[in-house]
Amino acid sequence: MTARAEAGAAGALRSAIERLDVAALGAELHGMVRELYPICRSITGDGLRRSLDILRRTVPLELHEVPSGTPVFDWVVPREWNLRSARLLGPSGEVIADASRLNLELLNYSIPFRGKVPLEELERHLHSLPDQPGLVPYRTSYYREAWGFCLSHERRSRLAPGDYQVDIDTTLADGSLTYGQLLVPGLEADEVLVSTHCCHPSLANDNCAGMALCAALARLLGELKPRYSYRFLFIPGTIGAITWLALHEAEARRIAHGLVAACAGDAGRLTYKRSRRGNTEVDRAAVHVLSHSGEPHEVRDFTPYGYDERQYGSPGFDLAVGSLTRTPYGEYPEYHTSGDDLSFVEPGALVSTLRCALRVLAVLEGNATFVNLSPRGEPQLGKRGLYGESGRAMDPDEHMGLLWVLNQSDGDHSLLQVAERSGLRFRALRRAASALESAGLLAQKEELR
Amino acid sequence: MTARAEAGAAGALRSAIERLDVAALGAELHGMVRELYPICRSITGDGLRRSLDILRRTVPLELHEVPSGTPVFDWVVPREWNLRSARLLGPSGEVIADASRLNLELLNYSIPFRGKVPLEELERHLHSLPDQPGLVPYRTSYYREAWGFCLSHERRSRLAPGDYQVDIDTTLADGSLTYGQLLVPGLEADEVLVSTHCCHPSLANDNCAGMALCAALARLLGELKPRYSYRFLFIPGTIGAITWLALHEAEARRIAHGLVAACAGDAGRLTYKRSRRGNTEVDRAAVHVLSHSGEPHEVRDFTPYGYDERQYGSPGFDLAVGSLTRTPYGEYPEYHTSGDDLSFVEPGALVSTLRCALRVLAVLEGNATFVNLSPRGEPQLGKRGLYGESGRAMDPDEHMGLLWVLNQSDGDHSLLQVAERSGLRFRALRRAASALESAGLLAQKEELR
Amino acid sequence: MTARAEAGAAGALRSAIERLDVAALGAELHGMVRELYPICRSITGDGLRRSLDILRRTVPLELHEVPSGTPVFDWVVPREWNLRSARLLGPSGEVIADASRLNLELLNYSIPFRGKVPLEELERHLHSLPDQPGLVPYRTSYYREAWGFCLSHERRSRLAPGDYQVDIDTTLADGSLTYGQLLVPGLEADEVLVSTHCCHPSLANDNCAGMALCAALARLLGELKPRYSYRFLFIPGTIGAITWLALHEAEARRIAHGLVAACAGDAGRLTYKRSRRGNTEVDRAAVHVLSHSGEPHEVRDFTPYGYDERQYGSPGFDLAVGSLTRTPYGEYPEYHTSGDDLSFVEPGALVSTLRCALRVLAVLEGNATFVNLSPRGEPQLGKRGLYGESGRAMDPDEHMGLLWVLNQSDGDHSLLQVAERSGLRFRALRRAASALESAGLLAQKEELR
Repeated sequence: MTARAEAGAAGALRSAIERLDVAALGAELHGMVRELYPICRSITGDGLRRSLDILRRTVPLELHEVPSGTPVFDWVVPREWNLRSARLLGPSGEVIADASRLNLELLNYSIPFRGKVPLEELERHLHSLPDQPGLVPYRTSYYREAWGFCLSHERRSRLAPGDYQVDIDTTLADGSLTYGQLLVPGLEADEVLVSTHCCHPSLANDNCAGMALCAALARLLGELKPRYSYRFLFIPGTIGAITWLALHEAEARRIAHGLVAACAGDAGRLTYKRSRRGNTEVDRAAVHVLSHSGEPHEVRDFTPYGYDERQYGSPGFDLAVGSLTRTPYGEYPEYHTSGDDLSFVEPGALVSTLRCALRVLAVLEGNATFVNLSPRGEPQLGKRGLYGESGRAMDPDEHMGLLWVLNQSDGDHSLLQVAERSGLRFRALRRAASALESAGLLAQKEELR
Repeated sequence: MTARAEAGAAGALRSAIERLDVAALGAELHGMVRELYPICRSITGDGLRRSLDILRRTVPLELHEVPSGTPVFDWVVPREWNLRSARLLGPSGEVIADASRLNLELLNYSIPFRGKVPLEELERHLHSLPDQPGLVPYRTSYYREAWGFCLSHERRSRLAPGDYQVDIDTTLADGSLTYGQLLVPGLEADEVLVSTHCCHPSLANDNCAGMALCAALARLLGELKPRYSYRFLFIPGTIGAITWLALHEAEARRIAHGLVAACAGDAGRLTYKRSRRGNTEVDRAAVHVLSHSGEPHEVRDFTPYGYDERQYGSPGFDLAVGSLTRTPYGEYPEYHTSGDDLSFVEPGALVSTLRCALRVLAVLEGNATFVNLSPRGEPQLGKRGLYGESGRAMDPDEHMGLLWVLNQSDGDHSLLQVAERSGLRFRALRRAASALESAGLLAQKEELR
Repeated sequence: MTARAEAGAAGALRSAIERLDVAALGAELHGMVRELYPICRSITGDGLRRSLDILRRTVPLELHEVPSGTPVFDWVVPREWNLRSARLLGPSGEVIADASRLNLELLNYSIPFRGKVPLEELERHLHSLPDQPGLVPYRTSYYREAWGFCLSHERRSRLAPGDYQVDIDTTLADGSLTYGQLLVPGLEADEVLVSTHCCHPSLANDNCAGMALCAALARLLGELKPRYSYRFLFIPGTIGAITWLALHEAEARRIAHGLVAACAGDAGRLTYKRSRRGNTEVDRAAVHVLSHSGEPHEVRDFTPYGYDERQYGSPGFDLAVGSLTRTPYGEYPEYHTSGDDLSFVEPGALVSTLRCALRVLAVLEGNATFVNLSPRGEPQLGKRGLYGESGRAMDPDEHMGLLWVLNQSDGDHSLLQVAERSGLRFRALRRAASALESAGLLAQKEELR
């Protein structure tokens, strides 16, 4: 690939970032979140399919179905679960829980059950949060057959003795696990993976926000001819990532860089969690972008807990996949409760996370290693119009960008490394590199071979 | 060796630590210190032998005698020194110094001398501490023939002019240098060295405390079938370590890890001094144990000053031997004075130091490198009973231990490295590794070869 | 080379440092600055030659002339510029600018021009500093043909409308670029470079101070028989360094260590800027000297901006050349203005910078890697008179120096590395190494091959 093409791809992405219409984009992203929120998703089933269909109005995802029973590494694709209705009525017929008003009220993956049960027995099927008595928890039972309801601890503690009517009309039967994928072909076969989980029901930030973000990101990338090929995966968490990895090992080996995006819309600070290897190019790109973002942010070391970076970073793959969120997994009180509702997600936060993701991709797209073609002493910038005249100073950052790129371009330092050493922004160095290339003072290392 | 055996050895040590009876052990250790304290030890002689005999009531040390004149590297084993009595009487016959009331009052290794000397001449043979006028210093003259007395500066400044009667009844004659040794055979030939100096006379912390500690440590290890073979050395400082190294070069090369223990009973913080290489396994084990100890502690870099870690860490050996003390060498005001008496050593401090040493050994015993046998994606812990059910959370540290061990077990990271990266306790990871081994998800790297 | 000769060279330099007569040297250095200050220097021409002639009274520099038009890498040696006189008179005949009272008032490298110009047109040829209205700026136009004057913004803002008389009597014609050089042959062919720029006109600190400093440094080194060969370059900035490098590539490859010295006399803190590689021996020597100097100081990372370390550190050379200044390039308000006058340079500061440079060279001269000839256990220092006797302590630093040198001298650690690890001063370790060599306990690694 030529440096020009590469600069072109990075430049197109850079322009796309600068053209972002914050208000319109925020409204669009929050609109998607609002549409996704009420659906009862799970790791399989129609809720998942319906959600992907909503995203397909934004971006042309392919939908894939993997049959129940398919062995995927140490796991087996489970039976498909679907909910028709689920209610719990009290001794006087009052509604205690009803999945149609809030699908969290049903234990996700509950098996069908209909009958009267006394309070003592019912208690073993109830889930509530004594420390957060006003909130309904989100609970699942994917791999152990069970039924249950989730409710606020306040409500639970007021339950009267007596018989309760349980009506859980669900199906758990052979079917398939669904995931969505968009491939954006690039100039290079090496891939960038962007993955988000789509299995959580009515939790707005976790992860309607991430789904909306990745759909918008996929649409933006799909409009460019990028350097890397991009693979966007909209998958159920854990089992979805494992399923995709198990069925696409060869493709997985082509993933050069990746991001798992989630929890993209709360008001908290941007958080990047490093990949397992800890200092890969995507890690350094993210650290660079965040440190120059002017926004509150945090960089964390990898842990094998969290979202699907756990699977991509399992030792048998060890992919360079980090995670971009706002407040991370489990660290906000509303996490995995009814408190993670539409009011918890802000349009401005969604756009800020999207912009950050785009900037990380722009660094990856634009990063390259150059060779100074006039390496002995400094070249004479003045005769090439690259030097401020007496009495009229050039922009100091621009001038320093030229000097740093010339000095460090010995074939051993990428532009991102020059940015790290110099403290200058990557985009300034990328511009300097392009100016020096045009002046014949610099060539991309790849081209010299 | 099988992982099971190794886990067994580490587990037995771990149980021994948990079974420690703090009160009884503190009383026993302080009792040993009290018994050792009055004896006039030196780098050779009967005081040293008598002290080792006391320790032999706790642990079956072999005693070794190396004849005077034996060349040991750059040194020669010196003549043996013994004290019968030593007194200094003033002009009026009053007792100025008397080794029988405090053996520090005689310059250690004083040659025999009997006669009257005027004060002016006597002054050249006196040692006192102007800055600590109430304390008697500890001084030696092993390699220059001399006689002398040590006394408080207060006493010295009140000495009247006149003739003083010197009666030093010592012998300095061919004999031998004595040291004690216990070998505890392990499953592996690689050795752990524990070494302590036994040459100091009436100094309770330095080093009756270290001698008592190492005797108790040796007894505890002797009751187990450990993974490593253990060598406990009770030796005179410097010349003893050099003598042992010179006569056992082949054995020294088998030492994989080691600790020099000393000053084990004062009220100060636990201090670990790194080995010469600075980041060996024993260094990292000690740092791990101290950082999770909940006790005040300090980790120091190696210096070629201190105890016999200097000799084990000389460049011709460069052994991975660190040093464990409480307040280090020379850093407490009572150091090498009569102030280092029985009241300076506390039973609780002795037990705390012993427990720390045992925990370091438990990490060494239990450390191993594993390979995840299901390395692509996470294995399904739930079907193996290793995952909390819905509504009932597993202990989070235990769960994280499983995830960390699985994630890092690629054959390149030992459990101790996993502990360092994860911030979890070694023992939790060791338990996780055993659970995963039992579940068939993990194997020790050695076993796979 | 023998260790003895090396120690001799380093010792002679060390003695020279200790013999420095601060008052006399400060007076001498400031005297040179005063003599150099009024001369109108540029990157070529008689002002440069006259300045080097002044320095030749201190040190026997060879003068070299490189003809205009000589290609030097990406540059060409420019035509030679000389100033006879330059004045700007106002409408009423008053003197606005006159190079004879302050040569900064003429744009350096102004082409000849004589004529009357109205104020509006004149403005395009004037340079002033709105933010520092009382100071005259220093400006140049080496590579674009132009004429101009520099004046205070205060004066400029009072200029009345009308016609101004311009009288610039300069020549710009084929000639040569001049530089001075002193080579001090050493025991080794490897070179130490000391380079300073001589192209700035009446700026006392930048760089009459650096020129005086390097002349005194060259004289001191010339009086010794050093270990390294020394090359002192007195050159015009940028083009001079590029010219020398282009014409002496083979010699440049012999440069093992180097310093660019400049801005050597202001009251600010000593500043060392690391070489491009960042942790070379000269970098570590400078950090060591500064950290033990007891003077305010700062160590900075390399940037490709500043003085001729930019050229020596271009990627095609990547020489281990750092920079020693007081307040760095561009960081004092008087920088490149008429405020950088004789009152800005202090004799004491000049001596402090010189002493620092000498100490860095003394570390380089004395640094070597040794091998402990008695590496198993510590050797017996007492029998060689290298150990304090009972009751009389050796100087603790001296004793620690012996122990550290013995412990670390395994052929892998230079004395400078031992200094870094131990925290002791290099000179104490150098003395310890010499004492141990004399005692037959140590040999230089080179000698053992």
